[in-house]
Amino acid sequence: MTDPSTMHAADIAGSVRDGAISARLVVEAVLARIARVDTAVNAFTDVLPERALTRADAVDAARARGEALGPLAGVPFAVKNLIDIAGLPTRAGSKINRDLAPARRDGALVRRLEAAGAILVGGLNMGEYAYDFTGENVHDGATRNPHDLGRMSGGSSGGSGGAIGAGLVPLALGSDTNGSIRVPSAFCGCFGLKPTYGRLTRAGSFPFVGSLDHLGPMARSVTDLALSYDAMQGPDPDDPVATTRAPDPAMPSLDDGIGDLRIAMAGGYFARGGDNEAFMAVETLAASLGCGRRVEIPEAARARAAAYLITAAEGAALHLDRLRTRAADFDPAVRDRLIAGAMIPAPFVERAQRFRRWYRAAMLDLFREVDIILAPSTPCRAPKSGQVTFELDGVTLPVRANIGVFTQPISFIGLPVVAVPVRVDDGLPLGVQVIAAPWREDLALRVARHLERNGVVSAPHAIL
Amino acid sequence: MTDPSTMHAADIAGSVRDGAISARLVVEAVLARIARVDTAVNAFTDVLPERALTRADAVDAARARGEALGPLAGVPFAVKNLIDIAGLPTRAGSKINRDLAPARRDGALVRRLEAAGAILVGGLNMGEYAYDFTGENVHDGATRNPHDLGRMSGGSSGGSGGAIGAGLVPLALGSDTNGSIRVPSAFCGCFGLKPTYGRLTRAGSFPFVGSLDHLGPMARSVTDLALSYDAMQGPDPDDPVATTRAPDPAMPSLDDGIGDLRIAMAGGYFARGGDNEAFMAVETLAASLGCGRRVEIPEAARARAAAYLITAAEGAALHLDRLRTRAADFDPAVRDRLIAGAMIPAPFVERAQRFRRWYRAAMLDLFREVDIILAPSTPCRAPKSGQVTFELDGVTLPVRANIGVFTQPISFIGLPVVAVPVRVDDGLPLGVQVIAAPWREDLALRVARHLERNGVVSAPHAIL
Repeated sequence: MTDPSTMHAADIAGSVRDGAISARLVVEAVLARIARVDTAVNAFTDVLPERALTRADAVDAARARGEALGPLAGVPFAVKNLIDIAGLPTRAGSKINRDLAPARRDGALVRRLEAAGAILVGGLNMGEYAYDFTGENVHDGATRNPHDLGRMSGGSSGGSGGAIGAGLVPLALGSDTNGSIRVPSAFCGCFGLKPTYGRLTRAGSFPFVGSLDHLGPMARSVTDLALSYDAMQGPDPDDPVATTRAPDPAMPSLDDGIGDLRIAMAGGYFARGGDNEAFMAVETLAASLGCGRRVEIPEAARARAAAYLITAAEGAALHLDRLRTRAADFDPAVRDRLIAGAMIPAPFVERAQRFRRWYRAAMLDLFREVDIILAPSTPCRAPKSGQVTFELDGVTLPVRANIGVFTQPISFIGLPVVAVPVRVDDGLPLGVQVIAAPWREDLALRVARHLERNGVVSAPHAIL
Repeated sequence: MTDPSTMHAADIAGSVRDGAISARLVVEAVLARIARVDTAVNAFTDVLPERALTRADAVDAARARGEALGPLAGVPFAVKNLIDIAGLPTRAGSKINRDLAPARRDGALVRRLEAAGAILVGGLNMGEYAYDFTGENVHDGATRNPHDLGRMSGGSSGGSGGAIGAGLVPLALGSDTNGSIRVPSAFCGCFGLKPTYGRLTRAGSFPFVGSLDHLGPMARSVTDLALSYDAMQGPDPDDPVATTRAPDPAMPSLDDGIGDLRIAMAGGYFARGGDNEAFMAVETLAASLGCGRRVEIPEAARARAAAYLITAAEGAALHLDRLRTRAADFDPAVRDRLIAGAMIPAPFVERAQRFRRWYRAAMLDLFREVDIILAPSTPCRAPKSGQVTFELDGVTLPVRANIGVFTQPISFIGLPVVAVPVRVDDGLPLGVQVIAAPWREDLALRVARHLERNGVVSAPHAIL
């Protein structure tokens, strides 16, 4: 039998429902693998064996009673530690938040996944307050890239990427404000879904930039993304920003293929300023999809700049009191950017917001002509741990600020993206963004699934 | 026969429809009165005799052909000069905007009023770029208070208040961002309607603070307010912020009386920090409505501060390029506030916006308990022209910044208000805000009409 600790979520749920395997056996295997492997990867900040085993026994007992089990029955998962876990303070990667009272209940998405039968096994490392693309953390240590322990996992959902890439859990939740699901998905070779802004409830999570924050799943198969996404959808009165739309399940059409979907590569801004292999990854996917078309995303550089400004200012607004009273307890790299953000003149941000409305309308126009746009997730493969600068297209740039050049202009207006992992040669994985119009996660997932079925993208876990 | 230049709009329309008077006669009388009186008041910046007479002849010709005439047939009106008038640059009280190309068509509300039979006779003076409560203007001169030419008309719709108070036209349009309809209505003794945010289209007008700007009518009777309001309602695809609601006419229920409406006076913040007579005005109205109840509007002082910040920052964002290139051409009092606004840190404004969402929700809660709230429009009667400070409740304060203390916390969240004119003794008029829940202009108009019918509020024009 396959080692249950490294199975896909769909296979675990199928086997648990069939009685081929018990939820307890799955959870025990996962806990054992975490204990063995995570000392190297450092993906977890909290492992919850008691809670997970109790829950596993409950799943097994329900099956023994003949009850119908959910679509994620027995599937272990873990969540970025900005999502509430009952009994733990929601640290959000920070030292300061450890002084908060323990959360009284789990975050809404944890509850939804568990209602579908999944089993929470722990909280995951992350960049402080999610203001990060590296996966480093001065308080908890960096999450290492499971495919090369000397390299960055990417951030800020570095623990989520590390846990999936290392095969510690089949499913993890991350958050993505400017790229924090897509960047670690690229570096760690996972699939990641950053849904449409507002699609998944954020109730019971610690925010970063309210108008840009998204929660979403990461996994090693497209089916697992879609399964968990469907289990998490739907309005939530506790989240004032969440959609009031009824769920729009992606599973039913997941294997429908790409039919006559109009697919194009993003040109211009998205075809320069990165390493060759990042663009080759996009072209490899495009070739497999029979797509030779390029479209221009208008004013992408301005979009990135505007996202940058809004992030810094809105993030600073959130942390203003903590900056005043606990400055020394921040990660210095985060603190200094927040302080800078606290001094951005309001009219600059106001103009960025106006531009954002224009840009959103322009992108909606573009989506009348195409259904899917492909773009690199990052300009390069995972940099080395601690690396401060890199050279992109002959220009030396700071790493931290520039990993997100291709993700920021997309999340800025809340478009849904499936990040897919590609290996264009024998090197480390790279990521490609499969971008759809708002509320069309189903299309991006179908394209990703088509690529996966054809063997063009895949997310094997690292052998550790 | 009554001098047609000083009749109410409803009476003019009735007489024109009946054939008792021609539209031409009305317009000629109005033009003659403007020529005679406006040298003293300085309400108009542009008078359009040719256009108005041509239009009057068209109304008369339509009647002669037996066509049905609109509800405002033959009613002369004028608009604050931030509303587009075809053929004129939309100066918005500034010197700088006079370099703009002439507007190619009238603003949407002008077209709607003329579609109802009204006749535009000119553009009205205003505070530069609407950043004003005094009615003063360094480029065009102050609009004087028609009830005391040595006093302020109030602003920024000072020309609108002056024109109505002086009996130059029965109907005028103004704009209200923080009080710019309600303040001149109070000082000049007019009725004014600041509708719910988004209710009346702003297409074809020059903005000030997009998230706070409202256009609305001013008149000498509640019926005239309601008639014109009904003619202007309805969605407008040219205004992205305007409501998509169908019109919600106020006229049908205007004379229904106050029935069992739950009416309360605003206490706390709204019952101190002003002259006694301002509060007496509110109490006089309350007594006539049989209302002894007071409610507390929560955090009104913070609401005012937040409105102040957002106004300064968003206004500065709008004018940033002009501040950089044309600083010397601004009114210094406006320029200096905009420059200060340009330097407000974004997180302050972000926090103000968060507070605003909280405050709006708190006010909606309050409106479950009451239907109408009464509050003073201004803390005092019209100050003297050029007056720089005043004493309120024993504290000496700058006039410009503090006239709007009671209006700012209301418009900040877009509540509809009918400003009603009161004379509590033989002095200059005072204004009271009749405030309703969002989209309930009909209730505020019914209460104002009830007060008017009972002789408690009235807006006779000044004898000039």
